[in-house]
Amino acid sequence: MSDLAELAQQLRVDAVRCSEVAGSGHPTSSLSAAHLMAVLFARHLRYDFDHPGEPGNDRLIFSKGHASPLLYALYKAAGAISDDELVTYRALGSRLEGHPTPRLPWVDVATGALGLGLPMGVGLALTGKMLDRLPYRTWVLCGDSELAEGSNWEAFEHAGHERLDKLVAIIDVNRLGQRGPTRLEWRTDEYAARIGAFGWDTIEIDGHDLSQIDEALRAAGSKGRPTAILARTIKGGGVEAVADKEGKHGKPVSDARAAIVELGGARNIGVRVAKPTYTAPPHRFGHAVPYEPPRYEKGDDVATRDAFGAALAALGHARPDVVGLDAEVADSTRMQLFADEHPDRFFQFYIAEQQMLAAAIGMQARGWIPYAATFAAFLTRGYDIIRMAAIGRADLRLVGSHAGVAIGEDGPSQMGLEDIAAFRAVHSSTVLHPCDANQTAALVAEMGDRSGISYLRTCRGVNPVIYGPDEEFVIGGSRILRSSSNDAVSLIGAGVTVHEALRAADDLEREGVRARVIDLYSLKPVDAFTVRAAARETGCLITIEDHWPEGGLGDAVFDVFAGGTPPPALIKLAVRDLPGSAEPEEQLSTAGIDSAAIAGTVRSYLAERAVTRD
Amino acid sequence: MSDLAELAQQLRVDAVRCSEVAGSGHPTSSLSAAHLMAVLFARHLRYDFDHPGEPGNDRLIFSKGHASPLLYALYKAAGAISDDELVTYRALGSRLEGHPTPRLPWVDVATGALGLGLPMGVGLALTGKMLDRLPYRTWVLCGDSELAEGSNWEAFEHAGHERLDKLVAIIDVNRLGQRGPTRLEWRTDEYAARIGAFGWDTIEIDGHDLSQIDEALRAAGSKGRPTAILARTIKGGGVEAVADKEGKHGKPVSDARAAIVELGGARNIGVRVAKPTYTAPPHRFGHAVPYEPPRYEKGDDVATRDAFGAALAALGHARPDVVGLDAEVADSTRMQLFADEHPDRFFQFYIAEQQMLAAAIGMQARGWIPYAATFAAFLTRGYDIIRMAAIGRADLRLVGSHAGVAIGEDGPSQMGLEDIAAFRAVHSSTVLHPCDANQTAALVAEMGDRSGISYLRTCRGVNPVIYGPDEEFVIGGSRILRSSSNDAVSLIGAGVTVHEALRAADDLEREGVRARVIDLYSLKPVDAFTVRAAARETGCLITIEDHWPEGGLGDAVFDVFAGGTPPPALIKLAVRDLPGSAEPEEQLSTAGIDSAAIAGTVRSYLAERAVTRD
Repeated sequence: MSDLAELAQQLRVDAVRCSEVAGSGHPTSSLSAAHLMAVLFARHLRYDFDHPGEPGNDRLIFSKGHASPLLYALYKAAGAISDDELVTYRALGSRLEGHPTPRLPWVDVATGALGLGLPMGVGLALTGKMLDRLPYRTWVLCGDSELAEGSNWEAFEHAGHERLDKLVAIIDVNRLGQRGPTRLEWRTDEYAARIGAFGWDTIEIDGHDLSQIDEALRAAGSKGRPTAILARTIKGGGVEAVADKEGKHGKPVSDARAAIVELGGARNIGVRVAKPTYTAPPHRFGHAVPYEPPRYEKGDDVATRDAFGAALAALGHARPDVVGLDAEVADSTRMQLFADEHPDRFFQFYIAEQQMLAAAIGMQARGWIPYAATFAAFLTRGYDIIRMAAIGRADLRLVGSHAGVAIGEDGPSQMGLEDIAAFRAVHSSTVLHPCDANQTAALVAEMGDRSGISYLRTCRGVNPVIYGPDEEFVIGGSRILRSSSNDAVSLIGAGVTVHEALRAADDLEREGVRARVIDLYSLKPVDAFTVRAAARETGCLITIEDHWPEGGLGDAVFDVFAGGTPPPALIKLAVRDLPGSAEPEEQLSTAGIDSAAIAGTVRSYLAERAVTRD
Repeated sequence: MSDLAELAQQLRVDAVRCSEVAGSGHPTSSLSAAHLMAVLFARHLRYDFDHPGEPGNDRLIFSKGHASPLLYALYKAAGAISDDELVTYRALGSRLEGHPTPRLPWVDVATGALGLGLPMGVGLALTGKMLDRLPYRTWVLCGDSELAEGSNWEAFEHAGHERLDKLVAIIDVNRLGQRGPTRLEWRTDEYAARIGAFGWDTIEIDGHDLSQIDEALRAAGSKGRPTAILARTIKGGGVEAVADKEGKHGKPVSDARAAIVELGGARNIGVRVAKPTYTAPPHRFGHAVPYEPPRYEKGDDVATRDAFGAALAALGHARPDVVGLDAEVADSTRMQLFADEHPDRFFQFYIAEQQMLAAAIGMQARGWIPYAATFAAFLTRGYDIIRMAAIGRADLRLVGSHAGVAIGEDGPSQMGLEDIAAFRAVHSSTVLHPCDANQTAALVAEMGDRSGISYLRTCRGVNPVIYGPDEEFVIGGSRILRSSSNDAVSLIGAGVTVHEALRAADDLEREGVRARVIDLYSLKPVDAFTVRAAARETGCLITIEDHWPEGGLGDAVFDVFAGGTPPPALIKLAVRDLPGSAEPEEQLSTAGIDSAAIAGTVRSYLAERAVTRD
């Protein structure tokens, strides 16, 4: 054990050193977990650092991502990075960021927002058990403060229920949060009672006692259940000036040189991390075949949510790497159609949207293609996770049903009215909102090859099919549905408002007014070419959306003109007043986004323009 | 008890009736809880339906808001609404919406997104104990499915720790979710073990046995702890065609007439709900006095987060109804300054952002003025709650610190880069982003009188004070910081980008180019007059924001032109690439939003315009 003690001290020294060079960071949060991680790396982790893509590798998540100095010190000890790189910590261009991200090949998921490592670890452990079917383990280093996050309790419940015995939460109970003592301080028995009630095995140890750590890590999983190791530790342990003291969070130790001396000075101990001992490839559910989407006839009344479910079920046959995730609304989102045909690749998370989304992140980290669906409104419950997924370069496919006021009687709590704004403001995101069943089916497949966060917005109610089953739809495209050489305005919609715009155009045509109608189903990226042409040729763009006025379709169109070219006249129709309950048609009318409102807006615009010209 | 049984049957009949008339709704979820609520209303609730503002009234939250037919049936039985109104359920204009909202005077908080009633109930119970200091009780009817939501476990933890013995969760364990059986079905012992581990008293009963219900409601709170009554019930109970059957969620019963017959037919039993028996007014923390904001001298370097903390502490003296809420980052947000001066009105939620936000909703429902603060990035954890707060007509003041890439080394997980988009897309919201300490202090006070969801975005780093301490700042205003009669462009910023824009304008002036500089500190509502004048007088608006390009300052400016008036040239500078770690100045430069990038953009624009004109 003396070599392990030396290794732990080296990790502490390196954590102090790199934070000192950076002038920022969280060394005290690193010091507390040094012994835990030294034993894990030297004795229990199975990981080939030369081949991070090796399927048999264990997974390691630092849920307390601010302890990145410790993680990078471990990478150095394991020979994955050099000491020269270590001291680039937090510098411009360095991949050793303040909080770890998958820019590092050994990092599966980005952390830094607390309470997410464990639910993402559940995703990886589920993947190992149900998809890859490999015996790798998922180790998650958690802080004690972050156990206050409800997301962790979704994870405890799910992992306990699924008996994910390859999942180990190592909880660094260092008693101190950012601002002061945690609620339970060192009362690991209280944590154990709670976590145990969710079906976990719990082990309470002294987190600086190497033998106790070794024994706990060895015992983890032996009872066929996920294991939480509750390790009492000292924040800032090993450095008297900061050990177990308040006010020392998130800053370099004040006298780093003295701290390093106190820790026994710099060392250069390598740790030989054992490689995985098995070589079986991950399980696959058959072979890829061409996608045969569901086909709908023009004029049929079909809801885009129905088309989504049918399309995903079909895609599941074409792509054996596609998986489906639900938060107990599969009957509404129509994810159920996928579940019925691919029960082995369907995951039920009950009403725990955060766990569903975090699990999807874990699954994509192992190369699977997760589609997760719930009501558009309820994806807001996981907005932080979606944000972190983007930072973690995750490829997620998310589907939000029941968009907008058009859902009708259920009222505003069930209406996705901010979802486009929220998803457009996610880095690397794609935002799609089809109006037609065949279009939906095409886009569901397109999402499968898309990197980043893809979002598909579907509608509850039926609308007529307007595209043939063999039309192609690409991300970044649009469709011009009405146009002539003398269009007076352009009507731009997506989803249900395309149908309202078509009706308005028909009404206006009877009055001798021609309106171009554009189905802007791809809201990000947007078809700037078609929007610019419409601006040039018609002089006025009227956007219509079943969404709040901010951040949605209208803003996506406006953004086309954000480069300095003078824009045309722009008119934005959107939902401005808080809806109540009413029938779908009443809702659209009340919100001023139905065909009558659109036609009225065109008439007003043309009348005003005539006056101006007079 | 026979009268109670009759009352319960009436509630069931009325739930079936109103759903039938509406053609939608959740009668089966109402039937299961009818006995529970009959006993509560007849024997235990203390509520004056003629005076919903009576401070001594108990609070009742239907966390399972979809059981609104039952709630409205109860209101009818209590004489609060007529039978004629009951059958307007879900109709256009009716206040009896699909999910209850505070349009009804007896509803404190909107529900409909699951897992929020209990954390909001914690807010009300905390208010009763710590602020109002009145003995009213908070009863929360929860579903069993929604216990999967992590937000509930934040509530169990907080209430248990605070020993909120006036809080009672009545959990309708009807075994069936929307799509199928719940994870634990009727195993109330497993729920009890979990909830009990968080410090609650738990009571397991047959939820259709009137005596057991009565006894449990009577015992609730007697052990000095919050109480969870775990009631085994039958979803659809009382109507054979739907009782305990899958596939019956969220739809009227198929033969309502037969169901009503089976339930014994319509009745017209009134329930006399007892009124509160005490008349003391709520506690007050002194009297209002004029606000004396902190004063900063021009040229001093001050972070807006520091000014926020100092201002809120000062506002706490001026307004005894102001309370402060923290999620364990008060040292970073500077909420700590309020906590130090007003410990009785400061609430620590540890790292549980959802519980913090939900508690704020509960507090404002009783007339208090909560300010809740965390990192802007971490408010995303509670986006669903903020959305629901708006639907509930709540007045919330939220403060997000550590905005944008300017935070520097901590990296993207800690950067609020989507917060403006998210908050702008909340109904009735106000979005403020000051650049200066005196401005911050003024706006903190303005928020106190603002209805709806107010959001203040603050910065981590210091910037020079540019406004005098006696300047007035109103919501919806802006400041023109540089202007001349021959401005070639307008630079519009907020927060840190105002300072970058000023530097750019100074640099450009040395080259003979005059640029107007506008501090658009109010992003919603926006000062359309000043923006339009800048457009007219300078012909080009360049917006600069430390935020993703979508939904932020640039879009707020564009939106001024969404009414059909042709806009000027618009150029949007924003953060487009995913940042890593770096120093603040490096971050601003890399993102292309520093003074050099702004000046370069102006030069390019002018050069292009010159070419076009040639």
